Amino acid sequence: MSNTKLSRVAIVGGTHGNELTGAYLIKKFEHFPALVKRPTFETLTLLGNPRAFKIGTRYVERDLNRCFLATDLNNPHLSTYEDHRAKEISQILGREENNPVDFIIDLHSTTSNMGLTVILGQEENPLVLELVAYLTSVNPSVKIFRWSHTQNNSFLRSLCPQAIAIEVGAISHGVLHPGYFEQTEKLIYTILDFLDKNNQRKIQVDSGKITIYQAKKLVDYPRDENGELTAMIHPQLMSQDYQALKPGEPMFLSFDGEVITYQGESTVFPTFIGEASYYEKGIAMCLTTKQEIVFES
Amino acid sequence: MSNTKLSRVAIVGGTHGNELTGAYLIKKFEHFPALVKRPTFETLTLLGNPRAFKIGTRYVERDLNRCFLATDLNNPHLSTYEDHRAKEISQILGREENNPVDFIIDLHSTTSNMGLTVILGQEENPLVLELVAYLTSVNPSVKIFRWSHTQNNSFLRSLCPQAIAIEVGAISHGVLHPGYFEQTEKLIYTILDFLDKNNQRKIQVDSGKITIYQAKKLVDYPRDENGELTAMIHPQLMSQDYQALKPGEPMFLSFDGEVITYQGESTVFPTFIGEASYYEKGIAMCLTTKQEIVFES
Repeated sequence: MSNTKLSRVAIVGGTHGNELTGAYLIKKFEHFPALVKRPTFETLTLLGNPRAFKIGTRYVERDLNRCFLATDLNNPHLSTYEDHRAKEISQILGREENNPVDFIIDLHSTTSNMGLTVILGQEENPLVLELVAYLTSVNPSVKIFRWSHTQNNSFLRSLCPQAIAIEVGAISHGVLHPGYFEQTEKLIYTILDFLDKNNQRKIQVDSGKITIYQAKKLVDYPRDENGELTAMIHPQLMSQDYQALKPGEPMFLSFDGEVITYQGESTVFPTFIGEASYYEKGIAMCLTTKQEIVFES
Repeated sequence: MSNTKLSRVAIVGGTHGNELTGAYLIKKFEHFPALVKRPTFETLTLLGNPRAFKIGTRYVERDLNRCFLATDLNNPHLSTYEDHRAKEISQILGREENNPVDFIIDLHSTTSNMGLTVILGQEENPLVLELVAYLTSVNPSVKIFRWSHTQNNSFLRSLCPQAIAIEVGAISHGVLHPGYFEQTEKLIYTILDFLDKNNQRKIQVDSGKITIYQAKKLVDYPRDENGELTAMIHPQLMSQDYQALKPGEPMFLSFDGEVITYQGESTVFPTFIGEASYYEKGIAMCLTTKQEIVFES
């Protein structure tokens, strides 16, 4: 049981404007705030990128969820809509204030087949580990994923040491997916209930192991000299997020029919396979290793 | 057996720039033209909206696949990128030339769970009916869909009386889906082979019945006075494209938990359920009736 007592919890959705499932959850919570109200802390809800949400795109000028490096937030020369919005969000969530939020839940969706995934924040701390241990005990299908530290630093959730993202899919961008909407909503209530009980010292999480998929390597598509794709995800690998990929197994299929295999030395577990938003970032998938973290309450 | 002899067949993909499955098929055919070459006709391949494809959006200024009304093509005052491109495509496909294409296959994808769907063109003619009868006999999972005539008139494929669209899904916008890529590719080869054999009088399609899903009614989401959604597709209906929806069955689920049922008088078969691109068009789904067309060879 963590000794941390929370006073303000933020739920953010629509940090990417075309991830409608999270954005509409925020809208629902704004209409019915009692749903996310808990006795022992204040809950704040926030639509991350309202302008991108309105026009149905991931972002207007720049990916908002890469705008939260401390140096960028302090740089007055960065002037895109998203740079401004990041500074606003940083103020709202209280980075510089006397009363900052002490837990962030950032809602995302992916076009990859990643089911219900909880992404750990910048730093691990006992409360977050207890929470994810609890969540996987309640629902064993929940997967725990962690980016590398370098990647983590520019995310919205890096504003707070105690933070998670919820990443659900496969959901098409621009689609409000009712099934995942309900699953995410339920997961949020479980999280809020956990945090509330933890505040009251009414929950006990047993020590144990948490399985974490740790990002190790980003892999781009094979491309020609102009940067155009020359291959697609191999049909056998598509939608197989979190499944073992062994050396020599198919990874890509080129347009002239050549099977390109995984050339690594050990088994990996690909995630974000074929994610729509990552073509422009030069990412076809993120290879992870499966790790166990020993958790002690 | 149709007596129509074809001389030029056009395959168009990426008419919507974020429907990558069709766009990359065109790129593959451009690299390997022998794949779509047939002895008895010329095959032309065309990337519909290259600028939208490049930036990964459905369109730049206006939906290209609504720009082909004859009055719009002849209107010199329409000046968006897509209006210009529609006029170019109309020239390329030879509307005003001595040598127009006499068959169009336009490749699309949908975020809805519509599997492999063939959409009929503006007018039915014996060759198209023979073709779809043949395609459903080869692959009974192929569905045949028809918009109303009003809707049909502005589509790219309306440039030619003999035309079909292939609509596959569920595929997220912005995703090159390898499984549907292969299925669509195979379907295209089956179509080209059929057209080639028909030219040579080497194919015989038996008379029979074709099941067609005929668009009858477009249904919007429940919205508030500001146009914002107040409900989502009911979880039970999501992904149930082409399945029977009976009066009184759930259609939407409002954010305050109310189930909104289908109030029609007879069973319908919803399609394009929750399609991402149709939120802005005010379409949550397209209700169809299931019809049988008696086909006589």
